[in-house]
Amino acid sequence: MKRGKSMRIAILAPIWETVPPPGYGGIELVVSLLADGLVEAGQQPVLFATGDSRSQAPLSWVSPHSLRSQGYSTERILPQAILHVTRVYQQASSFDIIHNHEGGLALSLAPFVKTPTVTTLHGPIDKNNQLFYRSFPGHPFVSLSEAQRRDCPDLNYLATVNNGIDPDLYSIGPKKGYLLFLGRISPEKGTHHAIRAAADAGYPLVIAGKVDPFDRDYFLREISPLIDGSQVRFIGEVGGIKKSLLLQGAMAMLHPVQWPEPFGLVLAEALASGVPVIAIGKGSIPEIIRSGKTGFVVDHPDQLADTVRWLNRIKATDCRNDCLERFHYRAMVKNYLKVYEGMLAQERK
Amino acid sequence: MKRGKSMRIAILAPIWETVPPPGYGGIELVVSLLADGLVEAGQQPVLFATGDSRSQAPLSWVSPHSLRSQGYSTERILPQAILHVTRVYQQASSFDIIHNHEGGLALSLAPFVKTPTVTTLHGPIDKNNQLFYRSFPGHPFVSLSEAQRRDCPDLNYLATVNNGIDPDLYSIGPKKGYLLFLGRISPEKGTHHAIRAAADAGYPLVIAGKVDPFDRDYFLREISPLIDGSQVRFIGEVGGIKKSLLLQGAMAMLHPVQWPEPFGLVLAEALASGVPVIAIGKGSIPEIIRSGKTGFVVDHPDQLADTVRWLNRIKATDCRNDCLERFHYRAMVKNYLKVYEGMLAQERK
Repeated sequence: MKRGKSMRIAILAPIWETVPPPGYGGIELVVSLLADGLVEAGQQPVLFATGDSRSQAPLSWVSPHSLRSQGYSTERILPQAILHVTRVYQQASSFDIIHNHEGGLALSLAPFVKTPTVTTLHGPIDKNNQLFYRSFPGHPFVSLSEAQRRDCPDLNYLATVNNGIDPDLYSIGPKKGYLLFLGRISPEKGTHHAIRAAADAGYPLVIAGKVDPFDRDYFLREISPLIDGSQVRFIGEVGGIKKSLLLQGAMAMLHPVQWPEPFGLVLAEALASGVPVIAIGKGSIPEIIRSGKTGFVVDHPDQLADTVRWLNRIKATDCRNDCLERFHYRAMVKNYLKVYEGMLAQERK
Repeated sequence: MKRGKSMRIAILAPIWETVPPPGYGGIELVVSLLADGLVEAGQQPVLFATGDSRSQAPLSWVSPHSLRSQGYSTERILPQAILHVTRVYQQASSFDIIHNHEGGLALSLAPFVKTPTVTTLHGPIDKNNQLFYRSFPGHPFVSLSEAQRRDCPDLNYLATVNNGIDPDLYSIGPKKGYLLFLGRISPEKGTHHAIRAAADAGYPLVIAGKVDPFDRDYFLREISPLIDGSQVRFIGEVGGIKKSLLLQGAMAMLHPVQWPEPFGLVLAEALASGVPVIAIGKGSIPEIIRSGKTGFVVDHPDQLADTVRWLNRIKATDCRNDCLERFHYRAMVKNYLKVYEGMLAQERK
């Protein structure tokens, strides 16, 4: 591969959800935009994903449908995942780069082929998996934020590449006077803090998102008693145009996360809709939200309500413009191309 | 490696249980005897297992303790399993043969190293995993019985090698007038059929074994109401010397399996104790029990009780001798050595 010539890039997606996902599935959404964006940029990506995936890039698959839609339990996915990852490595010599979004299986195969692999870390690098990643000391990683590296700064990080979105799916529209909580209803996402903050600020709150089985207790005990259908409304999981309209109408998104989120895709979606974000400054939040310009970053849940009255200082166009500049999928594609080119230059040395 | 020179053999064990296992763990028990037996036979095995394993062979490990003892869920074992299997393949050139008892992960790595891998299939090759194994068409497999191959005869089987036991742990002793059910209490193992057969035959039944969480309903509904403490007794999970004495005292073992068991280690243990086995002829049963000589193989649960009155035709010494001849771990070691030597002869061609 010479500089300027297009690269043959194997994009290894997870197979738990389809690419792009019909509903929930942040990784698959980002991978979808990356594959399409690489085609748009004149590259030669091949997408390894489920057979029902749709992409501008040619598709290669072993699992016809997403494993979640087939009712697989997380225990039973291993054989399918092994076949899926093996398929890429058996054809490794057909590619200049393998870009792994799937997880740990590719790390064990990477040292056995000449084609270099780069792995985007999509989850937190916490005490449960640090030892695992450290066991592959030479493996090249990409982080989603600088914050994601904090607990494990000693990996071989090549770059930080923020997740991207397609801004055409979101637009600035008429505000409808409610605050919005969007995401999984769970203690880590701080749904209960959002409810209190909205009540204290005196505005209605719309809650949208799924309740996972292990969050059901929390939902029944701490959230559902507070849903009154007017000051606090719960509308379940939303996607597509419904999600865009819901975002559009919000005065602000409340994001009182209680864990160090490596990158909150929902924040970029809010900004693209011209909606400021009021968030607690854990993990990557201060890298994503410019406090005072595209929202407010606070230290404690008690401070959330206070910032609501300052929302008139934030301009919707500032939010959207900042998002277009930093979280457009084309910026992500450009950044990944730099990573790939750097690796190939290294190879040639 | 020249014929006659000892082979360097990587034995890849599962890490869910310690080798040998303190209680339940058939694969780990067999792997333990294989590693020790290879040392005894002058070979150079290295055992890749948990750090608290004990073996005559040198040990190599990444997980200090068995994952079950550490409270791992089966979902969370994947990173540990990846490191464990990767460890073997990173050192592949130090070995003449890699003998995989761990499962599917090694299949994906095997094609990338020169050292050949052989995989012993420890479970049934049913519709859930046939497609998976067929995706590695050249990979050499060993089956535990001829029956195990039935649903998937088209894999590259090198041999059938029966599991072995250490006969020194079992001996013929005074019979104590009870029939025995030993194993997991579950519909597939047919515990309820054993209870009915013992009642019909007019002998007491001792039930020993664990009740897994997913079998709890079956136990509470179908088994526990029939436990009266005299005609039907339940004594929980047994191991070590307790198990040997329990086996020794039995008139016969009842084994009314309702699924095609690839190899029932418990049958070899009964025979080594001079105890005949009355079993339903599913899967590997007719290969293990010589009907009329070391027990009785029947087609239907209703026939179990009838055969009890013919037990006086079976000699304890016939049971034990047949076991010593066929299921001694040294026979297993000899058979595996033949497999290894065949593979290396093939390599040299």
